[in-house]
Amino acid sequence: MKNLLLASTSTIYGSAFLEYLMPELSILFAGVQNVTFVPYARPGGITEQEYTRKTAEAFAAIGIKVIGLDHQKDPKSALRDAEAIFTGGGNTFLLVKRLYELGLMSVLKEVLASGTPYLGTSAGTNICGQTMSTTNDMPIVPIPHHEVLQQIPFNINPHYTEPEQNSQHMGESRETRIREYLTQNSTAVIGLREGSWLRVIGPDISLQGSGHAAVFKKNKPTFYVAPGQDLNTLI
Amino acid sequence: MKNLLLASTSTIYGSAFLEYLMPELSILFAGVQNVTFVPYARPGGITEQEYTRKTAEAFAAIGIKVIGLDHQKDPKSALRDAEAIFTGGGNTFLLVKRLYELGLMSVLKEVLASGTPYLGTSAGTNICGQTMSTTNDMPIVPIPHHEVLQQIPFNINPHYTEPEQNSQHMGESRETRIREYLTQNSTAVIGLREGSWLRVIGPDISLQGSGHAAVFKKNKPTFYVAPGQDLNTLI
Repeated sequence: MKNLLLASTSTIYGSAFLEYLMPELSILFAGVQNVTFVPYARPGGITEQEYTRKTAEAFAAIGIKVIGLDHQKDPKSALRDAEAIFTGGGNTFLLVKRLYELGLMSVLKEVLASGTPYLGTSAGTNICGQTMSTTNDMPIVPIPHHEVLQQIPFNINPHYTEPEQNSQHMGESRETRIREYLTQNSTAVIGLREGSWLRVIGPDISLQGSGHAAVFKKNKPTFYVAPGQDLNTLI
Repeated sequence: MKNLLLASTSTIYGSAFLEYLMPELSILFAGVQNVTFVPYARPGGITEQEYTRKTAEAFAAIGIKVIGLDHQKDPKSALRDAEAIFTGGGNTFLLVKRLYELGLMSVLKEVLASGTPYLGTSAGTNICGQTMSTTNDMPIVPIPHHEVLQQIPFNINPHYTEPEQNSQHMGESRETRIREYLTQNSTAVIGLREGSWLRVIGPDISLQGSGHAAVFKKNKPTFYVAPGQDLNTLI
């Protein structure tokens, strides 16, 4: 039975890495001694090793050991044997490229379907959608496919936000970008704000945390769902 | 001899579409009666036809007729025969996908090298770099290659901006994204602010308009160039 926590961000303003999620992680990872970490998204260009170290420090607070895939000779087996998995944020293109070139996309799909508890933040959440096509990230490397783990029946836009008030910047708003996506695709998109997450338990998907999520469907007006609300029936 | 005007944006705050560029366009398009328009980027998801109409209205002000590629049965010949070309902004992925699937990328390369005057704005500017990998746009469709027209020896990040003051948003800054790009690539990147453009005449590339451009090179600190400055020697 699927057991996923898909967060918009690892870090909320004024708080440490993963800090706001710790109460939830104690539940998601109850009984877990080791979390296998997927460090490939490399936020800000830090190395995979640095990313694993940073993550290990955060998990030490709840008594969980972190096993970075960067340290594994056989990352496929490491994922198959994982007690629990965390894919951190950073650059979605880099993450997807590495998952495909190491043959890990299909392995991750398998183990999530079989019930391995999974935490995703930002890029690690985006890859649980149907495609990665609603990422905010810069396409710094080519990727072989846009299809990703397809654990939920829609796409995610992490770090969802409305335009800054009084901005004179003429770049597209997030909503405009997602509407451009929907001229070319029919998969619905959930704009997930920082501080909120999706909890997926078996077939049930609910919005948790703070802030309403924006839901974008082709040829329909945007609507908003409140924390606690079930998303299964909305899509 | 190359003759390109590569603008960060089509529209600056408080001004109409292309308005701030009109004095420059009278020079770039001096003696030109018809501009062939590449409408494939479709900003905000508008149709190619709507985009061509909008562009035709703007060019009517300087007595130039617009020929949209959306109206051409043979867009390859239309580009080869063009007196001048304008590629408008919108979604870079959509633009690049269409250029490749219609076989127009190589034709555009040819005609720009042979001296057809060219205006690019935003996505239309980005595609004159080495790759499109430093676009800000959402990857709403897969593309076959990241390589684009390679008219200048670096990449462009259009709509370049620093983070909003006092923002509590945790998404990456533009500089962070470009630095992530440089962990995977060695092509330099010019962050081109709204209101500024590159003027390319033969082998000469200079920054014009308002605002300093940010220059990002692998393993070097970011530096800034002033309007009027030559960019050839900087890369």
